[in-house]
Amino acid sequence: MTAKPPATPWTEDPILLTPGPLTTSPGTKGAMLHDWGSRDPAFIEMTARVCRRLLDLAGAGDAHAVVPIQGSGTFAVEAAIGTLVPRGGKALVLINGEYGRRIRHICEIIGRDHDALEWPEDTPPAPAEIAAKLEADGAISHVIAVHCETTSGILNPIPAIARAVAGAGRRLLVDAMSSFGALDLDCAAEPIDGVMASANKCLEGVPGIGFVVARRRALDAAAGNAPGLSLDLHDQWRAMEQSGQWRFTPPTHVVAGLDHALAEHEAEGGISGRGDRYRANCRALVGGMRALGFKTYLADDLQAPIIVTFHLPTDPSFDFEIFYGRLKDLGFIIYPGKLAAIPSFRIGCIGHITETEIKAAVAAVATVINEMGVKDCG
Amino acid sequence: MTAKPPATPWTEDPILLTPGPLTTSPGTKGAMLHDWGSRDPAFIEMTARVCRRLLDLAGAGDAHAVVPIQGSGTFAVEAAIGTLVPRGGKALVLINGEYGRRIRHICEIIGRDHDALEWPEDTPPAPAEIAAKLEADGAISHVIAVHCETTSGILNPIPAIARAVAGAGRRLLVDAMSSFGALDLDCAAEPIDGVMASANKCLEGVPGIGFVVARRRALDAAAGNAPGLSLDLHDQWRAMEQSGQWRFTPPTHVVAGLDHALAEHEAEGGISGRGDRYRANCRALVGGMRALGFKTYLADDLQAPIIVTFHLPTDPSFDFEIFYGRLKDLGFIIYPGKLAAIPSFRIGCIGHITETEIKAAVAAVATVINEMGVKDCG
Repeated sequence: MTAKPPATPWTEDPILLTPGPLTTSPGTKGAMLHDWGSRDPAFIEMTARVCRRLLDLAGAGDAHAVVPIQGSGTFAVEAAIGTLVPRGGKALVLINGEYGRRIRHICEIIGRDHDALEWPEDTPPAPAEIAAKLEADGAISHVIAVHCETTSGILNPIPAIARAVAGAGRRLLVDAMSSFGALDLDCAAEPIDGVMASANKCLEGVPGIGFVVARRRALDAAAGNAPGLSLDLHDQWRAMEQSGQWRFTPPTHVVAGLDHALAEHEAEGGISGRGDRYRANCRALVGGMRALGFKTYLADDLQAPIIVTFHLPTDPSFDFEIFYGRLKDLGFIIYPGKLAAIPSFRIGCIGHITETEIKAAVAAVATVINEMGVKDCG
Repeated sequence: MTAKPPATPWTEDPILLTPGPLTTSPGTKGAMLHDWGSRDPAFIEMTARVCRRLLDLAGAGDAHAVVPIQGSGTFAVEAAIGTLVPRGGKALVLINGEYGRRIRHICEIIGRDHDALEWPEDTPPAPAEIAAKLEADGAISHVIAVHCETTSGILNPIPAIARAVAGAGRRLLVDAMSSFGALDLDCAAEPIDGVMASANKCLEGVPGIGFVVARRRALDAAAGNAPGLSLDLHDQWRAMEQSGQWRFTPPTHVVAGLDHALAEHEAEGGISGRGDRYRANCRALVGGMRALGFKTYLADDLQAPIIVTFHLPTDPSFDFEIFYGRLKDLGFIIYPGKLAAIPSFRIGCIGHITETEIKAAVAAVATVINEMGVKDCG
């Protein structure tokens, strides 16, 4: 029962200008053309190789462990909060977008005591306010921050936040979902106990697993914290340390895709190489869109090179449904969601694409705008 | 940045004789050679098509909904228990293997009141004992059973169990992980409120998602039951009903693989066609191994055509590590785990394989046995 798969016109697929899932390389997709026994030594070795590479990318060493977890990035975030914040602990959630709000929601649902500091979606968390909050509330054990808030595309100042948290003697968890692999984040720095990310953002893998780079000391102390079995990071870590095996069936093909994607990441020059390409993509996108008259939501110095939020044109000829659909006809899928705060749309800069594809996307935007008869894109 | 993926010698991959992940078809793997925008209408349509097909396979109609969930099968089992057994409910877990024990463990961890009935691993649950237990304990609201216990390969009598549960006016959840798609299970029958399964067993998809076929009435009443966010089946269901979208990034390539695998399943003649092939595989396996002198753990009338447990030969020349490694050299990966109760090993009958591959595997077993100098395989 073996035959070649049907010829696949993947080069004709639309390019994904979304914040993940995104366009992956032919090699990464091709790595999924094999089946793996999940308890076979070859797959155990692959898992270990993936974890070792992720540990290196996190700038971490023996004091840390990478614990992969099946599911989406949110599964990894929930696993980290439920496992690393003890039942008697209290989390302070820093919120300036949807993913911060989701973290607060997770704390609520799993019953972890928590408080939050909120900022508008175009404003980074203020370290001084965090320091004041930590001084005022001695019960707070952990601060939870988002590195790049995909809601707006804003880059939050993790080093300054980490200093405020360290100064108060508390621990920090960082949701680095949409930045890991493209933007530097020194996970080994005190007071970071956990960094949560996933395969399908800047690492350019396919979706299906997340992971937590966790301080071993924190993991060690975390037995029995988790409110469930599947998302118990301590239990997953212990099992992997003992046998190298996942506790429950891993998404073998997704892991194989990530293994290949990480080799491509290394070949590209690691975080700096990947980051350089994304920064060039972002410049081409912002420059091209501004030349058409579009306005960015964020100030340039707050913009991460991951996803860019643009104001919706106020011109009554502009219709987002048509805009989205025609861009797709022309070969580009942008993000259909919008900011809660203001009428806007988002275009991602990440994935297996270069300035060439970004410039082609901007040209497609110009075509569609003309078709719609939009005179003013501001 | 588009080029053909590297030539992939998947026809040279070992054949997986494991209970999932298993050998998938070239077409199913080939379906993963595309990237999908997870919030794009084309992917929303694919998700709907997959769910509709799963609903049909479950023999269910409008009174039920299929709720997919990212992760392994255990994630779906935990989601079903946490969501469908209310916080004030009590579960009776029927145990004759590892997966029943895992269900009890989940109840313990998430804090659902529960009790258990246990049988040896070669013995099916006895409906009369279940009826007596339900009569004696009026607090039990739900019974949780396993259809095919992959631990031994035993087929548990779900229809008789369902009658006992219905007779006592209680609800039933069935873990049909390793049977769904190959063995009939009428999910629409009272008193079944939920059937849990996954993509990567008899449906011959790749691992990365599970799903629950749930009674809408039970889902409707389940708001706020779940102890977490990611595995909240009610919340997942509501979101999908409203927008057709997954709440959190789905494993798009895994879903595309399942979509293709379900089309192949239909083309093969659905459950009866798939079941017939597996029954032929199982007969060829058991017949061939018995001809070599191996003894099965289960009586033939208890054996599901999914995975077969054999006693380890007592001949001192037999070494399982060598056996496993040499079989792999010859192109066959068997299951490295063993029963807790007795020295044994397991060989699966499922996946994109026929009697041809099974007979070749038995021939490889004969070769390895001869190499090791094993005289007696009993």
